[in-house]
Amino acid sequence: MSLIDNLKWRYATKKMNGETVTDEKLNNILDAIQLAPSAYGLQPYTIFVISNPEVKAKLQPASYGQTQIVDGSHIIVFASWTDVSTQQVDDYIANIAAKRNMPAEALGGFKDYINGSIANLSQEQKAAWNAKQTYIALGIGLAAAAEQQVDATPMEGFVPAQYNEILGLNELGLNASVVMTLGYRSETDALATMPKVRRDKDLLFKFI
Amino acid sequence: MSLIDNLKWRYATKKMNGETVTDEKLNNILDAIQLAPSAYGLQPYTIFVISNPEVKAKLQPASYGQTQIVDGSHIIVFASWTDVSTQQVDDYIANIAAKRNMPAEALGGFKDYINGSIANLSQEQKAAWNAKQTYIALGIGLAAAAEQQVDATPMEGFVPAQYNEILGLNELGLNASVVMTLGYRSETDALATMPKVRRDKDLLFKFI
Repeated sequence: MSLIDNLKWRYATKKMNGETVTDEKLNNILDAIQLAPSAYGLQPYTIFVISNPEVKAKLQPASYGQTQIVDGSHIIVFASWTDVSTQQVDDYIANIAAKRNMPAEALGGFKDYINGSIANLSQEQKAAWNAKQTYIALGIGLAAAAEQQVDATPMEGFVPAQYNEILGLNELGLNASVVMTLGYRSETDALATMPKVRRDKDLLFKFI
Repeated sequence: MSLIDNLKWRYATKKMNGETVTDEKLNNILDAIQLAPSAYGLQPYTIFVISNPEVKAKLQPASYGQTQIVDGSHIIVFASWTDVSTQQVDDYIANIAAKRNMPAEALGGFKDYINGSIANLSQEQKAAWNAKQTYIALGIGLAAAAEQQVDATPMEGFVPAQYNEILGLNELGLNASVVMTLGYRSETDALATMPKVRRDKDLLFKFI
């Protein structure tokens, strides 16, 4: 199917049936997420892939009791960096040098450029900037799940501080930014067959 | 090609060759963007699709002189709402009612739920929340462009205040959030053939 057909097929599945997503499908979705672009290519996040039932049970009350947290197969938590350190920039530059088989010194200009641009940002601004990058990865992840005919729920309806506590994110300099559950829609979910609602194109787009 | 193949093919194309993207391909990309999910389904943004050469020329200095702004075929500006008004929520509820052929009154609970949740947010927080939604649409747009074998550049490297001025966004309660140029890579772009750099899976993903 085309991306458009996949996007028409998908919907924010709040009622899941408990079926497990296979490792093959999961890995396809994660491979796509890994390829998501980000500002400067930094990928300023760590992504938690949670299938442990006890951890899912702990996350449910931190998600306003939503059932897809426990009836979904995997919970994907996009946890963004709360800052950008010079070490993280150095690690990124080292990764480019390794992947492109070039000396890190040849990337000094690019490194200075990144460090210069983040030097003007407060820690709060860097955290907000990093969080935005996770939404690109979420968009790619939702497209990937639909291609695999795996249902997915993009979720902002959770308490980040509680997720951070449960998953130990504070100590890692991470903050739960946005969540995606993976699984399969319940046969009894009325939303599955309702017409999709989107803003009409003449309102959404302006051509210049 | 699969989404993963498409994502491997794409890269942030900074050097474009001036070729025009056909209306058919453009419309496919916009259709996908229209289908992008957003918080509550509000789609709190207007998307400007710019092909006018004079407007592109004005946007170039507001984009630190980057050449893909003028050598690209279309500039897509994701402009997010600077607030969320009760009128905008009402319009959304009316749209759901129309598309699903139900009375708006039947959606009163959902409307109250949205209004209740945004009542706790400052105008600044709503603006930031809306801006994040544009990054999901950007992610979907990048996947759609790659499927059409159209090159695309996700861009944060521009001056929002200048874009807002040039495009008249302030009067519309909009703020230029993120940009995507569409076009075709130049044959002389060395970046086109360089290995893609992404964080290794064992660093990017944590399994629980």
